[in-house]
Amino acid sequence: MNDFVFHNPDRVHFGKKCLKELPNELLKLGKKVLLVYGGGSIKRNGLYDEVCTLIKDNGMELFELSGVEPNPRHTTANKGAQICKKEGIDVVLAVGGGSTIDCSKGIAAAAVTDDLDVWPLVSGGVWVTKALPVVAVLTNAATGSEMDAWAVISNMETNEKIGLGGSALIPRAAFENPEWTYTLPHYQTACGAFDIFNHVLDNYYLAGDATFDLLLDMQEAVMRTVVKWAPVALKDPKNYEARANLMWASSMALNGILDGGTVHFCVCHMMEHELSAYYDITHGHGLAIIAPRWLEYILDENTAPAICRLGVKVFGIDAALDSMTGAKKTIEALENFCFNTLGLQSNLSDLGIDDKHIDDMVSHCCGGRNVPGIKTLTPDDIEKIYRMCL
Amino acid sequence: MNDFVFHNPDRVHFGKKCLKELPNELLKLGKKVLLVYGGGSIKRNGLYDEVCTLIKDNGMELFELSGVEPNPRHTTANKGAQICKKEGIDVVLAVGGGSTIDCSKGIAAAAVTDDLDVWPLVSGGVWVTKALPVVAVLTNAATGSEMDAWAVISNMETNEKIGLGGSALIPRAAFENPEWTYTLPHYQTACGAFDIFNHVLDNYYLAGDATFDLLLDMQEAVMRTVVKWAPVALKDPKNYEARANLMWASSMALNGILDGGTVHFCVCHMMEHELSAYYDITHGHGLAIIAPRWLEYILDENTAPAICRLGVKVFGIDAALDSMTGAKKTIEALENFCFNTLGLQSNLSDLGIDDKHIDDMVSHCCGGRNVPGIKTLTPDDIEKIYRMCL
Repeated sequence: MNDFVFHNPDRVHFGKKCLKELPNELLKLGKKVLLVYGGGSIKRNGLYDEVCTLIKDNGMELFELSGVEPNPRHTTANKGAQICKKEGIDVVLAVGGGSTIDCSKGIAAAAVTDDLDVWPLVSGGVWVTKALPVVAVLTNAATGSEMDAWAVISNMETNEKIGLGGSALIPRAAFENPEWTYTLPHYQTACGAFDIFNHVLDNYYLAGDATFDLLLDMQEAVMRTVVKWAPVALKDPKNYEARANLMWASSMALNGILDGGTVHFCVCHMMEHELSAYYDITHGHGLAIIAPRWLEYILDENTAPAICRLGVKVFGIDAALDSMTGAKKTIEALENFCFNTLGLQSNLSDLGIDDKHIDDMVSHCCGGRNVPGIKTLTPDDIEKIYRMCL
Repeated sequence: MNDFVFHNPDRVHFGKKCLKELPNELLKLGKKVLLVYGGGSIKRNGLYDEVCTLIKDNGMELFELSGVEPNPRHTTANKGAQICKKEGIDVVLAVGGGSTIDCSKGIAAAAVTDDLDVWPLVSGGVWVTKALPVVAVLTNAATGSEMDAWAVISNMETNEKIGLGGSALIPRAAFENPEWTYTLPHYQTACGAFDIFNHVLDNYYLAGDATFDLLLDMQEAVMRTVVKWAPVALKDPKNYEARANLMWASSMALNGILDGGTVHFCVCHMMEHELSAYYDITHGHGLAIIAPRWLEYILDENTAPAICRLGVKVFGIDAALDSMTGAKKTIEALENFCFNTLGLQSNLSDLGIDDKHIDDMVSHCCGGRNVPGIKTLTPDDIEKIYRMCL
């Protein structure tokens, strides 16, 4: 078991009536608010009007940046940073899913730099300790950005999608009303659910000797929640309990509670970021294609017990099976969850992706180094896993 | 499912080498430190010397208050508040278990009042939003005070033991090294373990319609951890995994993560506080006597499913049983855990307690009102449960 630090000062307001506290949280931080959002969904469902009214009626000044992309670009973050500088913005308010919140974090970080450019921070791996405060109004259960210290920013000129981290990027407050996810398209609900699942899977059982039972048990609870409630949300999009369990699972997956000294390397996430960087696909879908192949690839006598435990605890695989058989059934159950229950297409070729960029993706993903995890992977291993996904 | 707010800004440093960050955390808050502790255990195990050296070697000024009682008195907190005022203390550093941390919170709250008296805050039910900062170095896994917003303070003149709460009472930082619990006596380990278990049990399945699966699942994970690892720690006091799982379970049980909109009324805790106030017994032991009788008393057709789920998930009771049979087996399993596995005596008479003060305890505990929970309890119900414990 490894030593760890847990610290998450985000104040989360969760539930049907949570938004009424938005003005109080914003006013703690200032009066000039930059509202950041993506497409028009928040205009269609009324959330945009509600937020604008709350801001204006409480004596704050409102500025706007719309059009944040599903894989948010550094150029969009920089545009926001320029508005912050020009208008003297006090707080960046993200209203949307993970992409909008990530972009807002990029804006907040760039806005306090001299050149108002987020990319040097991203590409330089700078740990951000100074940024404008970010407040998040969450409309999708997926990335965990509403409670974590990370943003993922894409540079489409260089085909790079990289995480930007820093204590200053944890939102000061987050608002989570499960009803805001009622109108999400089926595909977004499915992709979001797998993103949550994979945040935990990427971090599962890596705690050295795996004796930190409480941590494993809580990780399994979050994965079980996704397996149980995602299908309910897909069939009955206005089921409050389903949406609420998924939304809180999203926050739990990355708020640090499930980290506890694990070696958080996120191999599936790193591999998927390359796919999104080259092909601009939806993150959760890419993960669903990669994760079962990754488990299949790393399965051996040493990893079988961990993979089998996952199946027993999360998918209800028979605990009496030997660990190799149980592990194989776990991978089948995961594939069934991804490709039948969530209804996601199972191969990269279904998304029009071939092996053209594989060498570049392997090179970016590993930087020539091995990737630690349940089993350490060489760049050659990573290439083989990509090819299993084609 | 109810709306909720989650906010816990405590920065927890966990593990064998965590204490090296103590000077950094203290120096963020000031240079004059009041070190608060109980008896001599931290002198015997070397922790006292280590803490004092870290403080002095890093240019801070050290003041001391020792002799905090197991059920900390308001008079001791007031003594500490006077030192704070006189010496201009910047930060109150608790080194000990829950009693020491609770007393330190009382000191921190009283120190910023005009009359330097914590009791008006306690008895007046004041929500404390202003206090000196508290830092906790935890040496027992039990009360959760290292990560929560509460302190329990006793007034032995009036036989009152009451919770003092407030956002300002959450420690700014906590240090948890499981090795510090290696030298705990068997009895303290057992009582602490049940305190953790009961914090979750008191809050279990009260989420209205009980559809917040993720919350229930995480609550069960913490209770399972206690059931699995407490016996290991009792048999093998220097087992790091056992001590670490219990220590983190202590923090998880009350840091807000398991609250999520539950109706946190804590009936067993309220009943036990009366016992400690009148008889100065160890809190966790009182809880272990009360909790199984409480479940037995409230068992009926409506509560059986919740109690049965507890048994299935936490004690491995057969899920195929009907809920009434399963619930009865759950109560048996809980009694077995308390009185055999933990080895705690099962009746109040074993602790020299008779029915002399029952009327007063009922009156204090309920204040003439009903107590909500899995099943609402009248003062008459509370009296009957006390009598079952004799």
